[in-house]
Amino acid sequence: MPEVMNGAGVSPGVGHGPVRRIAGEVPEPPADARHAGDAEAEKRTALAALAAVADDLEARAARAAEVGNDDGRDVLNAQALMARDPGLADGTAARIDQGAAAARAVFDAFGVYREMLAGAGEYLAARVTDLDDIRDRTVARLLGLPMPGVPDSDEPFVLVARDLAPADTAVLDPAKVVAFVTEEGGPTSHTAILARTMGVPAVVALPGATGIADGTMALVDGSSGRVVLDPAEDEVRTARDAAAARAAALRGATGPGQTRDGHRVPLLANVGGPQDLDNALANGAEGVGLYRTEFLFLDRATPPADAEQEKAYRKVLEAFPEGRVVVRALDAGADKPLAFLPPPGEEPNPALGERGLRMLRRHEDVLSAQLSALSRAASGLTTKLQVMAPMVTDAEEAAYFARACRDHGIDTPGVMVEVPAAALRARDLAREVAFFSLGTNDLTQYTCAADRQLGGLASLQDPWQPAVLDLVALSASAGIPCGVCGEAAGDPALACVLVGLGVTSLSMSAPSLPLVRAALARHTMAECRTAADAAREARTAADARAAAREALPGLAELGL
Amino acid sequence: MPEVMNGAGVSPGVGHGPVRRIAGEVPEPPADARHAGDAEAEKRTALAALAAVADDLEARAARAAEVGNDDGRDVLNAQALMARDPGLADGTAARIDQGAAAARAVFDAFGVYREMLAGAGEYLAARVTDLDDIRDRTVARLLGLPMPGVPDSDEPFVLVARDLAPADTAVLDPAKVVAFVTEEGGPTSHTAILARTMGVPAVVALPGATGIADGTMALVDGSSGRVVLDPAEDEVRTARDAAAARAAALRGATGPGQTRDGHRVPLLANVGGPQDLDNALANGAEGVGLYRTEFLFLDRATPPADAEQEKAYRKVLEAFPEGRVVVRALDAGADKPLAFLPPPGEEPNPALGERGLRMLRRHEDVLSAQLSALSRAASGLTTKLQVMAPMVTDAEEAAYFARACRDHGIDTPGVMVEVPAAALRARDLAREVAFFSLGTNDLTQYTCAADRQLGGLASLQDPWQPAVLDLVALSASAGIPCGVCGEAAGDPALACVLVGLGVTSLSMSAPSLPLVRAALARHTMAECRTAADAAREARTAADARAAAREALPGLAELGL
Repeated sequence: MPEVMNGAGVSPGVGHGPVRRIAGEVPEPPADARHAGDAEAEKRTALAALAAVADDLEARAARAAEVGNDDGRDVLNAQALMARDPGLADGTAARIDQGAAAARAVFDAFGVYREMLAGAGEYLAARVTDLDDIRDRTVARLLGLPMPGVPDSDEPFVLVARDLAPADTAVLDPAKVVAFVTEEGGPTSHTAILARTMGVPAVVALPGATGIADGTMALVDGSSGRVVLDPAEDEVRTARDAAAARAAALRGATGPGQTRDGHRVPLLANVGGPQDLDNALANGAEGVGLYRTEFLFLDRATPPADAEQEKAYRKVLEAFPEGRVVVRALDAGADKPLAFLPPPGEEPNPALGERGLRMLRRHEDVLSAQLSALSRAASGLTTKLQVMAPMVTDAEEAAYFARACRDHGIDTPGVMVEVPAAALRARDLAREVAFFSLGTNDLTQYTCAADRQLGGLASLQDPWQPAVLDLVALSASAGIPCGVCGEAAGDPALACVLVGLGVTSLSMSAPSLPLVRAALARHTMAECRTAADAAREARTAADARAAAREALPGLAELGL
Repeated sequence: MPEVMNGAGVSPGVGHGPVRRIAGEVPEPPADARHAGDAEAEKRTALAALAAVADDLEARAARAAEVGNDDGRDVLNAQALMARDPGLADGTAARIDQGAAAARAVFDAFGVYREMLAGAGEYLAARVTDLDDIRDRTVARLLGLPMPGVPDSDEPFVLVARDLAPADTAVLDPAKVVAFVTEEGGPTSHTAILARTMGVPAVVALPGATGIADGTMALVDGSSGRVVLDPAEDEVRTARDAAAARAAALRGATGPGQTRDGHRVPLLANVGGPQDLDNALANGAEGVGLYRTEFLFLDRATPPADAEQEKAYRKVLEAFPEGRVVVRALDAGADKPLAFLPPPGEEPNPALGERGLRMLRRHEDVLSAQLSALSRAASGLTTKLQVMAPMVTDAEEAAYFARACRDHGIDTPGVMVEVPAAALRARDLAREVAFFSLGTNDLTQYTCAADRQLGGLASLQDPWQPAVLDLVALSASAGIPCGVCGEAAGDPALACVLVGLGVTSLSMSAPSLPLVRAALARHTMAECRTAADAAREARTAADARAAAREALPGLAELGL
């Protein structure tokens, strides 16, 4: 008997496969966890857990070897050897003899090796992560918790989690995941963004998701948010046929972005670097509306060299000889900490801390080097280079950034509008810069004071909140071009509303482009304005969404 | 030769005394800190540090005994004994023999005792804090860092710090502190609020403050923000005379709050409970504009009993038989976590997390018990009880809270306006509730996306930011009474601007009331409106402040 569950569809398409759950971090066992008194039994339990982890690691090493992944085999075998280390077993046993519970004893026994490794030079220090993985697997086994990390599977699967962190998904094999389902998260959560970038269907905010047993077959519809467990065969077939039909309709939507009555709205792609260009071009991007340069700076001890920066920027610029490329200056801080740009002190709320332009002003050499590399990269090309500052709050900051750009020969400076103050005083900021780009994810987060990373606040992180629409309208009427590069631009209904509010270009994950192009092409500018007015008259996000859909009849033709 | 430094005056008055600096937390020495090779010398250094800490603790114990503080003497002597423990010395020496640097060796040697204590029953577990204090003092000495905690002094002193955390000031003796000076912080920082509540002069955001040597004599003017080091005697006298003269002028400002042309603006006090009533009444408060009920709930494993709540509420209500008392429903979460209301998961940014009404909706029993106790407390009294919800974002939440109040017979429900969305959609919210109260501290924090707790962002945490004034104007024009209970209400110039923006009552720390009463009494409503318009036309907070002062000539008469 199929079971139907409903969440929020955040990445379109249909996926079908067995469920594999991902577990959260394994907690540190309490420092005072003691066993019940039978030390010998406790020792047997602890040693059995270590042995089982070693067995599992060896089995995975063998599988890695079968598919020719020799590095993977070596790491896994080295981990298994570590789990079988007699010193580790002795250390664990000694702590159990002193009364510690098995999980705590294992944790502390690993601690000794951990310190040794950490203090023993760069190469061995890097192995601490491998060691922690073994420790966490053993502790998880002893405490009856699910194994940490992305599940290991030979066949494609539906990945189910409470929520996904960037660390969880770094090692994800896109060919193995047919859909994402999370219990928490909203349309701007990491899961949603990742899924859209990978072009994988995703449903978030699905109550009870983590309670679905591993191995259950699931049919996931990333448009409607519907998840069917143990679906009948014909249901799977029908869903796949419908998805294919819509995909065909979308392939018909080509050419530059415009409303039905010919009002041009350039459709641009959000990219993280040259690696994303193929996907952007394949989906008909007319340029880049948000080039997130952070990826070039991550996981480094020092900023990338000038020549390396110039090369990466030039590659992206060269891809759009007749279009524009909007580059965001390095947005470090908050959830994107960089080793060489640490915040000046501990931050209880990094999202409200030293990030974006605030951080760049403390490190003017980094900003200057980036602007200079950008200027050199654009020289001689026909592509229109625009550079914008992240996390700008007031007119003084906007003026500072505009000066910095002009000092480097960049004559189209802009600012991200993602802080409510910047939107409220858009007219003041418009006197300083040449364009705005609305970061609707952060703008919504700050306007509703609701952390994007918290699944429990999804209803407040909704860019359909009328207050957010008010700020979009304020920004778009300030007299300079105003694009949107947040996730809101990739929602076909909201994209029409944004255009109705006066937004002049839309930038999104490349896979969202065809559907937005099709939605815009089915509505006139007047319909978009009517939908925008209706949405702003609503009192809640849900009412705003419903009112706008009512005013946008063409969405139904797209099965939306 | 006197040296003059300038910061931001945030609590008026003049203080003069020797500087005592407070240090921040002592950091954990790096796990891989090794000594240079001479283990014997390193051991001598470590043991000397332990001995010096023990000596210091014994000296303090003797001083405590002299003033009759026998409990203090016993704790300090017990700590000294611990610092002299031979096992600790052996553990430290053994680690140094293995190569560890002295500070790390001490840290780890304490770690063994720490775990033993932590695992050894409730009484001993509570001693972990004492142990950590000895460890931190020893590590600080070895690393050349200032001693942690509030300085120990027999004579009154000027407390200097980078910034003050609530934990630092919990043990503060108000009789011993003549002024606060911090390097970071803004007008809404903990230091500023604490100083105003204690009636102690304070200057924050003073660059170089922590570089002032202990013992330097400092003259601190909490109105102008001026700090003079090693001042001449006549300068001290002049400053004290001026402060006394102003104090006299303020004693003349009595009666209910009103503008020069008789426009009534009730002046209310922010209180944390019955203990703050004397101060409120002494400063002529016409009622309570913000009763922070959190203090009743802090440091408890379960909520206070119904009868205990009712008693505390009734005491506050009884103090103002002809006035009003505005009670804020429990505002748990963010920087005020409660043991029995934990957030549902880890929060990377607690200020953007589950707090205020969001948390109460998850624990309706707590909200219901509080409303019911409030309703009972007010019954039979002439005081006007008003109850408001913290951290409200949209009209749906406002309607929820209004229903909950009415279900308990409370017919004047209100909401705090501290989330930008609530201010932007004030007209929608005004249809649901009877009054607004602007929390300008949080409203500024969210509008400018700048953490109140970060000193480095002080210029963005300024309630004079024109964007914040825009939101005040939106809220005050929504058709229902709109007070202000944030720190902005206690700034005499800003108070006049707020009234000019349409705010109908002002609530503040009691010691700020006389100055605000005097400032209002010196200006007409028309002057307040002109000042408000001028401030909103400015493009930065500094320009707004300057423009408003220009339009408020009466401030100069008060020496402002």
